[in-house]
Amino acid sequence: MSISMAKGEKTKSKILEKAASLASICGLEDMSIGKLAKATGLSKSGLFAHFNSKENLQTQVVQWVAEMFTEQVMRPAFNEPRGIPRIRGIFENWKDWIEGDSLPGGCIMIASSTEFDDKPGAVRDEIVGMMSDLLQSLTRTARIAIEEGHFKADSDPKQFAFEFESLLHGYHLLQRLLKDPDARKRSDTAFERLIESYQADLPKPH
Amino acid sequence: MSISMAKGEKTKSKILEKAASLASICGLEDMSIGKLAKATGLSKSGLFAHFNSKENLQTQVVQWVAEMFTEQVMRPAFNEPRGIPRIRGIFENWKDWIEGDSLPGGCIMIASSTEFDDKPGAVRDEIVGMMSDLLQSLTRTARIAIEEGHFKADSDPKQFAFEFESLLHGYHLLQRLLKDPDARKRSDTAFERLIESYQADLPKPH
Repeated sequence: MSISMAKGEKTKSKILEKAASLASICGLEDMSIGKLAKATGLSKSGLFAHFNSKENLQTQVVQWVAEMFTEQVMRPAFNEPRGIPRIRGIFENWKDWIEGDSLPGGCIMIASSTEFDDKPGAVRDEIVGMMSDLLQSLTRTARIAIEEGHFKADSDPKQFAFEFESLLHGYHLLQRLLKDPDARKRSDTAFERLIESYQADLPKPH
Repeated sequence: MSISMAKGEKTKSKILEKAASLASICGLEDMSIGKLAKATGLSKSGLFAHFNSKENLQTQVVQWVAEMFTEQVMRPAFNEPRGIPRIRGIFENWKDWIEGDSLPGGCIMIASSTEFDDKPGAVRDEIVGMMSDLLQSLTRTARIAIEEGHFKADSDPKQFAFEFESLLHGYHLLQRLLKDPDARKRSDTAFERLIESYQADLPKPH
Protein backbone atom coordinates (compact mmCIF):
# COMPACT_ATOMS: atom_id res chain seq x y z
CA MET A 1 0.00 0.00 0.00
CA SER A 2 1.38 3.42 -0.95
CA ILE A 3 1.66 6.09 1.72
CA SER A 4 -1.08 8.21 0.10
CA MET A 5 -3.46 5.23 -0.03
CA ALA A 6 -2.77 4.42 3.59
CA LYS A 7 -3.52 8.04 4.48
CA GLY A 8 -6.73 7.93 2.44
CA GLU A 9 -7.86 4.79 4.23
CA LYS A 10 -7.10 6.36 7.59
CA THR A 11 -9.15 9.45 6.77
CA LYS A 12 -12.01 7.29 5.56
CA SER A 13 -11.92 5.19 8.71
CA LYS A 14 -12.11 8.37 10.82
CA ILE A 15 -15.11 9.56 8.82
CA LEU A 16 -16.81 6.19 9.21
CA GLU A 17 -16.23 6.35 12.96
CA LYS A 18 -18.09 9.67 13.12
CA ALA A 19 -20.80 8.37 10.79
CA ALA A 20 -21.35 5.29 12.96
CA SER A 21 -21.49 7.44 16.07
CA LEU A 22 -24.11 9.66 14.43
CA ALA A 23 -26.11 6.69 13.07
CA SER A 24 -26.18 5.04 16.48
CA ILE A 25 -28.21 8.01 17.71
CA CYS A 26 -30.30 9.14 14.74
CA GLY A 27 -30.66 5.77 13.01
CA LEU A 28 -28.93 4.52 9.91
CA GLU A 29 -31.80 5.50 7.59
CA ASP A 30 -31.55 9.09 8.72
CA MET A 31 -27.86 9.14 7.81
CA SER A 32 -27.00 11.00 4.63
CA ILE A 33 -23.92 12.59 3.11
CA GLY A 34 -25.45 16.00 3.79
CA LYS A 35 -26.05 15.27 7.49
CA LEU A 36 -22.60 13.77 7.87
CA ALA A 37 -21.12 16.90 6.29
CA LYS A 38 -22.97 19.07 8.80
CA ALA A 39 -21.96 16.89 11.76
CA THR A 40 -18.30 16.65 10.80
CA GLY A 41 -17.71 20.04 9.20
CA LEU A 42 -16.31 18.26 6.12
CA SER A 43 -17.36 19.35 2.64
CA LYS A 44 -20.17 17.48 0.92
CA SER A 45 -18.08 17.13 -2.23
CA GLY A 46 -15.20 15.62 -0.25
CA LEU A 47 -17.58 13.10 1.33
CA PHE A 48 -19.08 12.30 -2.08
CA ALA A 49 -15.59 11.48 -3.32
CA HIS A 50 -15.35 8.87 -0.54
CA PHE A 51 -18.85 7.35 -0.69
CA ASN A 52 -20.62 8.30 -3.97
CA SER A 53 -24.12 7.73 -2.57
CA LYS A 54 -26.17 7.56 0.62
CA GLU A 55 -26.62 3.80 0.16
CA ASN A 56 -22.89 3.28 -0.20
CA LEU A 57 -22.25 5.35 2.93
CA GLN A 58 -24.84 3.31 4.89
CA THR A 59 -23.40 0.02 3.64
CA GLN A 60 -19.89 1.05 4.64
CA VAL A 61 -21.09 2.16 8.08
CA VAL A 62 -22.60 -1.31 8.59
CA GLN A 63 -19.31 -2.93 7.51
CA TRP A 64 -17.34 -0.65 9.79
CA VAL A 65 -19.61 -1.41 12.76
CA ALA A 66 -19.38 -5.16 12.07
CA GLU A 67 -15.56 -4.90 12.11
CA MET A 68 -15.63 -2.93 15.34
CA PHE A 69 -17.98 -5.47 16.92
CA THR A 70 -15.56 -8.25 15.95
CA GLU A 71 -12.66 -6.22 17.32
CA GLN A 72 -14.28 -5.28 20.63
CA VAL A 73 -16.71 -8.11 21.41
CA MET A 74 -15.64 -11.29 19.62
CA ARG A 75 -11.85 -11.11 19.31
CA PRO A 76 -11.03 -10.43 22.99
CA ALA A 77 -13.40 -13.27 23.96
CA PHE A 78 -11.38 -15.63 21.77
CA ASN A 79 -8.46 -15.15 24.14
CA GLU A 80 -10.60 -16.88 26.77
CA PRO A 81 -10.45 -20.69 27.04
CA ARG A 82 -12.72 -22.61 24.64
CA GLY A 83 -16.22 -23.41 25.84
CA ILE A 84 -18.20 -21.61 28.52
CA PRO A 85 -15.46 -19.11 29.48
CA ARG A 86 -15.38 -17.87 25.87
CA ILE A 87 -19.19 -17.59 25.74
CA ARG A 88 -19.09 -15.66 29.00
CA GLY A 89 -16.47 -13.36 27.48
CA ILE A 90 -18.71 -12.60 24.50
CA PHE A 91 -21.62 -11.87 26.85
CA GLU A 92 -19.61 -9.45 29.01
CA ASN A 93 -18.08 -7.60 26.04
CA TRP A 94 -21.43 -7.39 24.28
CA LYS A 95 -23.08 -5.76 27.28
CA ASP A 96 -20.32 -3.12 27.34
CA TRP A 97 -20.85 -2.60 23.62
CA ILE A 98 -24.61 -2.08 24.09
CA GLU A 99 -23.96 0.37 26.91
CA GLY A 100 -22.31 2.51 24.31
CA ASP A 101 -18.64 2.61 25.23
CA SER A 102 -17.95 2.86 21.51
CA LEU A 103 -21.22 4.00 20.01
CA PRO A 104 -23.06 6.68 22.01
CA GLY A 105 -26.47 5.53 20.75
CA GLY A 106 -26.03 1.82 21.44
CA CYS A 107 -25.84 -1.09 19.07
CA ILE A 108 -26.44 -0.14 15.42
CA MET A 109 -26.60 -3.85 14.60
CA ILE A 110 -29.66 -4.38 16.77
CA ALA A 111 -31.30 -1.09 15.79
CA SER A 112 -30.74 -1.52 12.06
CA SER A 113 -32.13 -5.06 12.18
CA THR A 114 -35.62 -3.68 12.71
CA GLU A 115 -35.01 -0.43 10.81
CA PHE A 116 -34.17 -2.18 7.55
CA ASP A 117 -36.14 -5.42 7.74
CA ASP A 118 -38.73 -4.07 5.29
CA LYS A 119 -36.39 -2.07 3.05
CA PRO A 120 -34.95 -4.28 0.30
CA GLY A 121 -31.58 -3.23 -1.09
CA ALA A 122 -27.85 -3.25 -0.55
CA VAL A 123 -28.01 -1.95 3.04
CA ARG A 124 -30.52 -4.61 4.10
CA ASP A 125 -28.38 -7.29 2.40
CA GLU A 126 -25.34 -6.08 4.33
CA ILE A 127 -27.25 -6.19 7.64
CA VAL A 128 -28.60 -9.68 6.89
CA GLY A 129 -25.05 -10.85 6.11
CA MET A 130 -23.70 -9.32 9.31
CA MET A 131 -26.43 -10.84 11.50
CA SER A 132 -26.14 -14.26 9.83
CA ASP A 133 -22.37 -14.21 10.38
CA LEU A 134 -22.89 -13.32 14.02
CA LEU A 135 -25.37 -16.16 14.57
CA GLN A 136 -22.93 -18.53 12.86
CA SER A 137 -20.09 -17.41 15.13
CA LEU A 138 -22.30 -17.95 18.18
CA THR A 139 -23.30 -21.38 16.84
CA ARG A 140 -19.62 -22.33 16.43
CA THR A 141 -18.85 -21.15 19.95
CA ALA A 142 -21.66 -23.35 21.28
CA ARG A 143 -20.41 -26.30 19.20
CA ILE A 144 -16.98 -25.87 20.81
CA ALA A 145 -18.63 -25.86 24.25
CA ILE A 146 -20.15 -29.25 23.36
CA GLU A 147 -16.76 -30.56 22.15
CA GLU A 148 -15.15 -29.41 25.38
CA GLY A 149 -17.76 -31.29 27.37
CA HIS A 150 -19.08 -28.05 28.90
CA PHE A 151 -22.47 -28.31 27.17
CA LYS A 152 -24.59 -31.47 27.07
CA ALA A 153 -23.67 -33.65 24.08
CA ASP A 154 -27.19 -33.42 22.64
CA SER A 155 -27.35 -29.61 22.84
CA ASP A 156 -28.47 -27.83 19.66
CA PRO A 157 -25.82 -25.14 19.00
CA LYS A 158 -28.07 -23.16 16.62
CA GLN A 159 -30.79 -23.11 19.25
CA PHE A 160 -28.30 -21.81 21.81
CA ALA A 161 -27.16 -19.09 19.38
CA PHE A 162 -30.77 -17.95 18.93
CA GLU A 163 -31.50 -17.86 22.65
CA PHE A 164 -28.23 -16.05 23.42
CA GLU A 165 -28.85 -13.44 20.69
CA SER A 166 -32.45 -12.91 21.93
CA LEU A 167 -31.19 -12.25 25.43
CA LEU A 168 -28.94 -9.45 24.22
CA HIS A 169 -31.84 -7.86 22.31
CA GLY A 170 -33.82 -7.93 25.55
CA TYR A 171 -30.90 -6.33 27.38
CA HIS A 172 -30.77 -3.59 24.74
CA LEU A 173 -34.46 -2.83 25.40
CA LEU A 174 -34.08 -2.61 29.18
CA GLN A 175 -30.79 -0.72 29.11
CA ARG A 176 -31.22 1.70 26.21
CA LEU A 177 -34.95 2.36 26.05
CA LEU A 178 -36.27 1.72 29.55
CA LYS A 179 -33.06 2.67 31.39
CA ASP A 180 -34.07 0.03 33.92
CA PRO A 181 -31.61 0.08 36.85
CA ASP A 182 -32.01 -3.72 37.02
CA ALA A 183 -31.07 -4.25 33.36
CA ARG A 184 -27.66 -5.78 34.19
CA LYS A 185 -29.10 -7.96 36.95
CA ARG A 186 -31.93 -9.23 34.72
CA SER A 187 -29.63 -10.11 31.84
CA ASP A 188 -26.96 -11.65 34.09
CA THR A 189 -29.59 -13.86 35.74
CA ALA A 190 -31.01 -14.84 32.34
CA PHE A 191 -27.50 -15.64 31.10
CA GLU A 192 -26.70 -17.88 34.08
CA ARG A 193 -30.06 -19.65 33.67
CA LEU A 194 -29.37 -20.13 29.97
CA ILE A 195 -25.88 -21.54 30.54
CA GLU A 196 -27.15 -23.83 33.31
CA SER A 197 -29.83 -25.25 31.00
CA TYR A 198 -27.19 -26.26 28.42
CA GLN A 199 -24.43 -27.24 30.84
CA ALA A 200 -23.36 -30.87 31.05
CA ASP A 201 -23.84 -32.55 34.40
CA LEU A 202 -20.66 -32.26 36.40
CA PRO A 203 -18.91 -35.59 36.92
CA LYS A 204 -19.70 -36.96 40.38
CA PRO A 205 -16.81 -36.71 42.86
CA HIS A 206 -15.01 -40.04 43.48
CA MET B 1 -71.20 11.07 21.98
CA SER B 2 -72.86 13.00 19.13
CA ILE B 3 -73.15 11.37 15.73
CA SER B 4 -70.70 13.81 14.14
CA MET B 5 -68.10 13.16 16.87
CA ALA B 6 -68.48 9.43 16.45
CA LYS B 7 -67.96 9.84 12.72
CA GLY B 8 -64.90 12.02 13.33
CA GLU B 9 -63.42 9.37 15.63
CA LYS B 10 -64.07 6.66 13.06
CA THR B 11 -62.35 8.66 10.32
CA LYS B 12 -59.39 9.31 12.59
CA SER B 13 -59.12 5.65 13.51
CA LYS B 14 -59.05 4.73 9.81
CA ILE B 15 -56.30 7.27 9.18
CA LEU B 16 -54.30 5.91 12.13
CA GLU B 17 -54.67 2.40 10.76
CA LYS B 18 -53.09 3.51 7.48
CA ALA B 19 -50.43 5.50 9.31
CA ALA B 20 -49.49 2.48 11.45
CA SER B 21 -49.34 0.29 8.37
CA LEU B 22 -47.02 2.79 6.68
CA ALA B 23 -44.88 3.26 9.82
CA SER B 24 -44.46 -0.51 10.21
CA ILE B 25 -42.60 -0.52 6.90
CA CYS B 26 -40.80 2.83 6.69
CA GLY B 27 -40.24 3.37 10.41
CA LEU B 28 -42.05 5.72 12.76
CA GLU B 29 -39.43 8.46 12.46
CA ASP B 30 -39.90 8.58 8.71
CA MET B 31 -43.63 9.13 9.20
CA SER B 32 -44.84 12.68 8.58
CA ILE B 33 -48.13 14.37 7.77
CA GLY B 34 -46.83 15.00 4.23
CA LYS B 35 -45.96 11.35 3.66
CA LEU B 36 -49.24 10.18 5.12
CA ALA B 37 -51.08 12.58 2.81
CA LYS B 38 -49.25 11.10 -0.19
CA ALA B 39 -49.91 7.52 0.91
CA THR B 40 -53.60 8.03 1.69
CA GLY B 41 -54.55 10.60 -0.92
CA LEU B 42 -55.99 12.79 1.86
CA SER B 43 -55.23 16.48 1.96
CA LYS B 44 -52.37 17.72 4.12
CA SER B 45 -54.62 20.39 5.64
CA GLY B 46 -57.24 17.78 6.57
CA LEU B 47 -54.56 15.67 8.27
CA PHE B 48 -53.21 18.73 10.08
CA ALA B 49 -56.70 19.34 11.45
CA HIS B 50 -56.54 15.84 12.99
CA PHE B 51 -52.95 15.78 14.27
CA ASN B 52 -51.46 19.31 14.36
CA SER B 53 -47.85 18.10 14.24
CA LYS B 54 -45.61 15.22 13.20
CA GLU B 55 -44.88 14.45 16.86
CA ASN B 56 -48.57 14.31 17.68
CA LEU B 57 -49.19 11.99 14.73
CA GLN B 58 -46.34 9.70 15.83
CA THR B 59 -47.58 9.64 19.43
CA GLN B 60 -51.09 8.76 18.32
CA VAL B 61 -49.79 6.00 16.05
CA VAL B 62 -47.98 4.50 19.06
CA GLN B 63 -51.17 4.69 21.14
CA TRP B 64 -53.19 3.14 18.33
CA VAL B 65 -50.69 0.30 17.90
CA ALA B 66 -50.64 -0.33 21.67
CA GLU B 67 -54.44 -0.59 21.64
CA MET B 68 -54.38 -2.95 18.70
CA PHE B 69 -51.73 -5.10 20.41
CA THR B 70 -53.96 -5.30 23.49
CA GLU B 71 -56.93 -6.18 21.29
CA GLN B 72 -55.21 -8.83 19.20
CA VAL B 73 -52.52 -10.30 21.44
CA MET B 74 -53.43 -9.77 25.10
CA ARG B 75 -57.22 -9.74 25.26
CA PRO B 76 -57.87 -13.04 23.42
CA ALA B 77 -55.21 -14.70 25.62
CA PHE B 78 -57.16 -13.57 28.69
CA ASN B 79 -59.97 -15.91 27.60
CA GLU B 80 -57.54 -18.78 28.22
CA PRO B 81 -57.37 -20.29 31.71
CA ARG B 82 -55.08 -18.50 34.20
CA GLY B 83 -51.46 -19.62 34.34
CA ILE B 84 -49.48 -21.37 31.62
CA PRO B 85 -52.37 -21.65 29.09
CA ARG B 86 -52.76 -17.87 29.17
CA ILE B 87 -49.00 -17.32 28.73
CA ARG B 88 -49.05 -19.76 25.82
CA GLY B 89 -51.95 -17.78 24.32
CA ILE B 90 -49.97 -14.54 24.49
CA PHE B 91 -47.00 -16.26 22.84
CA GLU B 92 -49.05 -17.65 19.95
CA ASN B 93 -50.91 -14.38 19.31
CA TRP B 94 -47.71 -12.38 19.53
CA LYS B 95 -46.01 -14.50 16.88
CA ASP B 96 -48.98 -13.92 14.54
CA TRP B 97 -48.72 -10.22 15.28
CA ILE B 98 -44.99 -10.16 14.41
CA GLU B 99 -45.66 -12.05 11.20
CA GLY B 100 -47.62 -9.01 10.16
CA ASP B 101 -51.21 -10.16 9.96
CA SER B 102 -52.17 -6.64 11.02
CA LEU B 103 -49.10 -4.56 10.28
CA PRO B 104 -47.38 -5.41 7.00
CA GLY B 105 -43.97 -4.34 8.27
CA GLY B 106 -44.05 -6.25 11.55
CA CYS B 107 -44.13 -5.00 15.10
CA ILE B 108 -43.82 -1.21 15.42
CA MET B 109 -43.41 -1.65 19.17
CA ILE B 110 -40.18 -3.63 18.76
CA ALA B 111 -38.91 -1.46 15.89
CA SER B 112 -39.64 1.84 17.61
CA SER B 113 -37.94 0.65 20.80
CA THR B 114 -34.56 0.91 19.12
CA GLU B 115 -35.54 3.72 16.75
CA PHE B 116 -36.43 6.13 19.54
CA ASP B 117 -34.19 5.04 22.40
CA ASP B 118 -31.87 8.01 21.82
CA LYS B 119 -34.50 10.58 20.84
CA PRO B 120 -35.92 12.31 23.92
CA GLY B 121 -39.43 13.70 23.61
CA ALA B 122 -43.11 12.87 23.66
CA VAL B 123 -42.85 9.95 21.22
CA ARG B 124 -40.07 8.28 23.19
CA ASP B 125 -42.07 8.79 26.42
CA GLU B 126 -45.09 7.13 24.81
CA ILE B 127 -42.99 4.13 23.68
CA VAL B 128 -41.40 3.80 27.13
CA GLY B 129 -44.87 3.85 28.71
CA MET B 130 -46.16 1.24 26.27
CA MET B 131 -43.20 -1.09 26.80
CA SER B 132 -43.29 -0.69 30.59
CA ASP B 133 -47.02 -1.52 30.57
CA LEU B 134 -46.36 -4.59 28.48
CA LEU B 135 -43.62 -5.84 30.82
CA GLN B 136 -45.95 -5.23 33.77
CA SER B 137 -48.73 -7.23 32.10
CA LEU B 138 -46.32 -10.08 31.45
CA THR B 139 -45.13 -9.89 35.06
CA ARG B 140 -48.71 -10.12 36.31
CA THR B 141 -49.38 -13.10 34.06
CA ALA B 142 -46.33 -14.85 35.50
CA ARG B 143 -47.45 -13.98 39.04
CA ILE B 144 -50.81 -15.64 38.30
CA ALA B 145 -48.95 -18.73 37.04
CA ILE B 146 -47.22 -18.90 40.44
CA GLU B 147 -50.55 -18.47 42.27
CA GLU B 148 -52.07 -21.27 40.18
CA GLY B 149 -49.19 -23.55 41.13
CA HIS B 150 -48.05 -23.78 37.48
CA PHE B 151 -44.77 -21.98 38.11
CA LYS B 152 -42.40 -22.77 41.00
CA ALA B 153 -43.30 -20.76 44.10
CA ASP B 154 -39.90 -19.04 44.19
CA SER B 155 -40.04 -17.92 40.53
CA ASP B 156 -39.27 -14.26 39.86
CA PRO B 157 -42.17 -12.96 37.72
CA LYS B 158 -40.24 -9.89 36.52
CA GLN B 159 -37.39 -12.11 35.43
CA PHE B 160 -39.82 -14.29 33.49
CA ALA B 161 -41.32 -11.20 31.82
CA PHE B 162 -37.85 -10.09 30.70
CA GLU B 163 -36.92 -13.50 29.32
CA PHE B 164 -40.26 -13.88 27.54
CA GLU B 165 -40.03 -10.41 25.98
CA SER B 166 -36.42 -11.10 24.86
CA LEU B 167 -37.52 -14.28 23.12
CA LEU B 168 -40.07 -12.38 21.03
CA HIS B 169 -37.44 -9.82 20.02
CA GLY B 170 -35.27 -12.72 18.87
CA TYR B 171 -38.20 -14.14 16.92
CA HIS B 172 -38.70 -10.76 15.26
CA LEU B 173 -35.06 -10.83 14.10
CA LEU B 174 -35.24 -14.34 12.64
CA GLN B 175 -38.67 -13.91 11.08
CA ARG B 176 -38.62 -10.36 9.75
CA LEU B 177 -34.96 -9.66 8.99
CA LEU B 178 -33.40 -13.06 8.32
CA LYS B 179 -36.56 -14.74 6.98
CA ASP B 180 -35.18 -17.90 8.56
CA PRO B 181 -37.46 -20.85 7.67
CA ASP B 182 -36.71 -22.24 11.15
CA ALA B 183 -37.84 -19.05 12.95
CA ARG B 184 -41.06 -20.62 14.31
CA LYS B 185 -39.28 -23.84 15.32
CA ARG B 186 -36.50 -21.92 17.11
CA SER B 187 -38.89 -19.70 19.04
CA ASP B 188 -41.28 -22.55 19.88
CA THR B 189 -38.38 -24.61 21.24
CA ALA B 190 -37.09 -21.64 23.23
CA PHE B 191 -40.59 -21.03 24.62
CA GLU B 192 -41.02 -24.65 25.75
CA ARG B 193 -37.55 -24.57 27.36
CA LEU B 194 -38.42 -21.30 29.10
CA ILE B 195 -41.75 -22.61 30.43
CA GLU B 196 -40.11 -25.85 31.56
CA SER B 197 -37.47 -23.94 33.52
CA TYR B 198 -40.16 -22.07 35.49
CA GLN B 199 -42.67 -24.90 35.74
CA ALA B 200 -43.43 -26.37 39.15
CA ASP B 201 -42.61 -30.06 39.59
CA LEU B 202 -45.70 -32.12 38.85
CA PRO B 203 -47.15 -33.84 41.92
CA LYS B 204 -46.04 -37.49 42.02
CA PRO B 205 -48.78 -39.98 41.10
CA HIS B 206 -50.24 -41.83 44.10
